[in-house]
Amino acid sequence: MSRITDKLTSLGIALPEAPKPVASYIPALKVGNLLYVSGQIPFQDGELVYKGAVPTNCSPEKAAQAARICAINGLAAAQQALGGDLDQVKGVVRLGVFVASEPDFNGQPLIANGASDLMVEIFGEDGQHVRAAVGSIALPLGASVEVEMILELRS
Amino acid sequence: MSRITDKLTSLGIALPEAPKPVASYIPALKVGNLLYVSGQIPFQDGELVYKGAVPTNCSPEKAAQAARICAINGLAAAQQALGGDLDQVKGVVRLGVFVASEPDFNGQPLIANGASDLMVEIFGEDGQHVRAAVGSIALPLGASVEVEMILELRS
Amino acid sequence: MSRITDKLTSLGIALPEAPKPVASYIPALKVGNLLYVSGQIPFQDGELVYKGAVPTNCSPEKAAQAARICAINGLAAAQQALGGDLDQVKGVVRLGVFVASEPDFNGQPLIANGASDLMVEIFGEDGQHVRAAVGSIALPLGASVEVEMILELRS
Repeated sequence: MSRITDKLTSLGIALPEAPKPVASYIPALKVGNLLYVSGQIPFQDGELVYKGAVPTNCSPEKAAQAARICAINGLAAAQQALGGDLDQVKGVVRLGVFVASEPDFNGQPLIANGASDLMVEIFGEDGQHVRAAVGSIALPLGASVEVEMILELRS
Repeated sequence: MSRITDKLTSLGIALPEAPKPVASYIPALKVGNLLYVSGQIPFQDGELVYKGAVPTNCSPEKAAQAARICAINGLAAAQQALGGDLDQVKGVVRLGVFVASEPDFNGQPLIANGASDLMVEIFGEDGQHVRAAVGSIALPLGASVEVEMILELRS
Repeated sequence: MSRITDKLTSLGIALPEAPKPVASYIPALKVGNLLYVSGQIPFQDGELVYKGAVPTNCSPEKAAQAARICAINGLAAAQQALGGDLDQVKGVVRLGVFVASEPDFNGQPLIANGASDLMVEIFGEDGQHVRAAVGSIALPLGASVEVEMILELRS
């Protein structure tokens, strides 16, 4: 029985296929008891579902949802790197959240909460993490949000 | 007797109240012998004191001061996470410095020195660290600077 | 015989003089079995060779070359920190790639490949890493690309 998989199911979250290894960089890498996960963008069923800068081309509400999807994709990458077993994750260390922003948009923390809250929903207190949330002039493929993460693994 | 607290006093720096834990993300997190600290913005006495992009809405001189305040807030977060004892800090590993910038402003290193220099003033040679300093189109709440850090702890 | 130096030679890459320690921040720092390297910009023979935002002031092709030069400079910093012996490097953990971008440029991953591919050319499978590639409104000295890295060392 997998505690985290059960939790994901109870939240109605089905982890997608992990992103394919992309040439020279890879979705996730274990070093010691840390698992580094590459920056994720809001792909869902193979489609980039939230594009454009906040707030004109992507509303803050949609961008927060985008951050949540990024986090889900990050967990999918982690699961793959851990041979399918997310129960090896002890907790979340850090999220780096980049929000495609217009110059006068300053609500990056609320957007990032879409990813941060998900971590606590899934991992409870162990999901609490440090974070840097900043605006970006442009993100890969026009994504509205990019989220990278560091997870701590059980020894 | 606290070596670092004494040093702070001699520099005329009073660490503020640490930032409150903010829901899903937290000010600082210890993992192994590293202490990760969340991105800090230039809050002073509960007020965001440096806002707007450099150089038009915030001069480079003020932005360097903002970076210093961010670093002080990061140390306050570290102190809280360490139960009040900053002497557990062995040194500084990395600063990530984001500077709200107009497209033609390229002095991010000088701004970041406001934070970097403080680390060496406090920790001496152990305060020397690696750094990434970049421009950002927009930062949380309109801050001029955001600084995140990784500290090394004594084993 | 140095495996990595031989590899560099076979690729026609001569590592430059490592960047000078710059006051409070330093080019590279070892902590445990990780080597953190500061953000590097595309200096070559003391000159910043790629400046300006992509794509108008720096073409994507040139920016990818800039990323490669940043990575070479990062390895030079690592080599210096390791007393000249890059064979202590076990592999590459993470690259952080910032690309000076206009708002409608979304090809940051292709730019970042200039750095990522070099890592695999040099270190083989151990050069595969996680990555965050994002756009930036402005970078130090007007650089087109900045690359920071974390390397894993042999224990």
